Amino acid sequence: MIDPLQLIRKEVIEFQPYVPGEQPGLGESVIKLNTNENPYPPSPKIEESIREILSKGVLRKYPNYHSAELQNSIAKRYGLKPDQILVTNGSDEALRLLFYALLSPKDTVVAPDPTYSFYPVLSEEVMLGVTYKKIPLLSDLHFDFESLKKEKGKLLCFAHPNAPTGILEDKNKLLDLIRNFEGVVLSDEAYIDFAKPNQSLITEIQNHPNLIVSRTFSKSYSLAGLRVGFIAGESKLIDLIRKLKDSYNVGILDQRIALTAWEDEDYFQKCLGLVVSERKRLTEELGKLGFSIPESSANFIFCKPKQGISPEAIYKTLKDKNILVRYFSTGISKDYVRISIGTEEENNSLLKELKSILQP
Amino acid sequence: MIDPLQLIRKEVIEFQPYVPGEQPGLGESVIKLNTNENPYPPSPKIEESIREILSKGVLRKYPNYHSAELQNSIAKRYGLKPDQILVTNGSDEALRLLFYALLSPKDTVVAPDPTYSFYPVLSEEVMLGVTYKKIPLLSDLHFDFESLKKEKGKLLCFAHPNAPTGILEDKNKLLDLIRNFEGVVLSDEAYIDFAKPNQSLITEIQNHPNLIVSRTFSKSYSLAGLRVGFIAGESKLIDLIRKLKDSYNVGILDQRIALTAWEDEDYFQKCLGLVVSERKRLTEELGKLGFSIPESSANFIFCKPKQGISPEAIYKTLKDKNILVRYFSTGISKDYVRISIGTEEENNSLLKELKSILQP
Repeated sequence: MIDPLQLIRKEVIEFQPYVPGEQPGLGESVIKLNTNENPYPPSPKIEESIREILSKGVLRKYPNYHSAELQNSIAKRYGLKPDQILVTNGSDEALRLLFYALLSPKDTVVAPDPTYSFYPVLSEEVMLGVTYKKIPLLSDLHFDFESLKKEKGKLLCFAHPNAPTGILEDKNKLLDLIRNFEGVVLSDEAYIDFAKPNQSLITEIQNHPNLIVSRTFSKSYSLAGLRVGFIAGESKLIDLIRKLKDSYNVGILDQRIALTAWEDEDYFQKCLGLVVSERKRLTEELGKLGFSIPESSANFIFCKPKQGISPEAIYKTLKDKNILVRYFSTGISKDYVRISIGTEEENNSLLKELKSILQP
Repeated sequence: MIDPLQLIRKEVIEFQPYVPGEQPGLGESVIKLNTNENPYPPSPKIEESIREILSKGVLRKYPNYHSAELQNSIAKRYGLKPDQILVTNGSDEALRLLFYALLSPKDTVVAPDPTYSFYPVLSEEVMLGVTYKKIPLLSDLHFDFESLKKEKGKLLCFAHPNAPTGILEDKNKLLDLIRNFEGVVLSDEAYIDFAKPNQSLITEIQNHPNLIVSRTFSKSYSLAGLRVGFIAGESKLIDLIRKLKDSYNVGILDQRIALTAWEDEDYFQKCLGLVVSERKRLTEELGKLGFSIPESSANFIFCKPKQGISPEAIYKTLKDKNILVRYFSTGISKDYVRISIGTEEENNSLLKELKSILQP
């Protein structure tokens, strides 16, 4: 009798999957500021759109495999053609398909460090032998554009604004980097809606055939519970990536709910405004408590406590008080805690606990 | 300036994706008997469970990454441990993860032919160089067990009952084949609920560590519009496959709706009964029209028209009448049309059209 475990590829056995932030059960009353969910609910119009889907009796039928209505609506907003958009099961799927489509052993992926920690995991998952080359951030936590421009590779990826720093890089510097890079560039814009307007690179796709932009409905559209994201790029490039997706990658309810949230722009802007104003307040209040915080363009802030205070201890103490924030134990991130922006009430609870920790 | 298309792996450029059956738009009034959807709606209890999810305001939060409640409920029903179950984004994801976990270039996948046409596509997608070895069905459309037993490979896969034939193989013959095969065996049980009771191999996992069983909620649970499926197997094997899934592969609504449908056993049995009795009636009526149809244990029938009648012409004529059935143009399948079992009314419309085609 063979041992079936011996049949699994050794790359899989050695592979260390991405570890997402803790997700307490639905019943637990926790202030959850660790995974950058939006503190406000999604568009109230989605209830009606769910009722409509149910009344049509279509749950028993396969969904449209291109998520066509959503695809069309996204394309229209940015003046793109529908085939420039690929709707995916969260942006995780989008990133995975891109990596699988591009990378072979001996290829190199270049990225600033730190950035979204899923990229090195994906690089390793694709195939043993892919080199993931990290270019450290400058001491002000900005990208080291000079060093990045010297790099060669099949793929350059970064979060824009960056995670976990929240910092938004200058658009022209990014475009210059993209024009200079002899490979595909991924601008992962999971948090771009929280930045000042017109910073997305999605409108630059037409002039930059090596640029891919990814987005998600999980953060700014308050739909982390669904799994909907997309990538945009040059038609032929997107067509090739699309070949690797599962036939029906996004369910009917998720397609429809995402579309409803996408088109309810007034509500969307209102929630964004609340997050942005709370981000400003929280940054100021934490500054008073001695934290150094780079200016954030995302829905989280990257907080370095004053000298002598351990960020890991802050994380643990807050956790004991049922407040979850994110702590990464590696690289420069180990000197920081990353805190998602909550509601005013949640942020007040956080501030109260932090005051009692830091000013006992 | 580089051409980014030159950067895509040549395996991807050459790859021919799976072509799913036609999906007319939601508005079109078509009798859809081409992709084996259930003609009856899912459990009426799902409306209440959706309301519950919405009232908890959890759509903005990430889902449980193991789909734990559903995983536990599935495990319990079969006397398995939760870690023997991996809940996936449709069974497509389950199959993909299994193939990716196992296969390297130069490996061989063995399968009866025809069976689910997604397996050769997946084999090719994984990596150029995987050999997909087809063992033709016997002339009675049953598996050629003698030939299958002589094969060696990393993976043996078959649909149980088989697609597109609908034929259920003898459980003991399958178990004998599994014990004999020096690799992993996938029993893809998308249609097993439509077969007579106790034919699933899922209860045999404990005694067959190289056996993986896949299931879907798309067919018997009337939830093709969602994307939920699962695989079951030996814990350590499932643990390794699980490493390759996206962190949050199944959304909150899909998890909850699938659980509700899974636990509403009375309704489930009632719909199954209706499909099975319509399958019997349709088989008899089509027999009177000269079709040869092997005994089906699925929610579709594999129909060979009498001598001189072209199955492709039947497919096309029905399509002109807004009735979709499935026609495969290759191998032995080209002599058949595959017809999903509809409601009594849909089946009557089909019979009426077929009568006017065949007895003009």
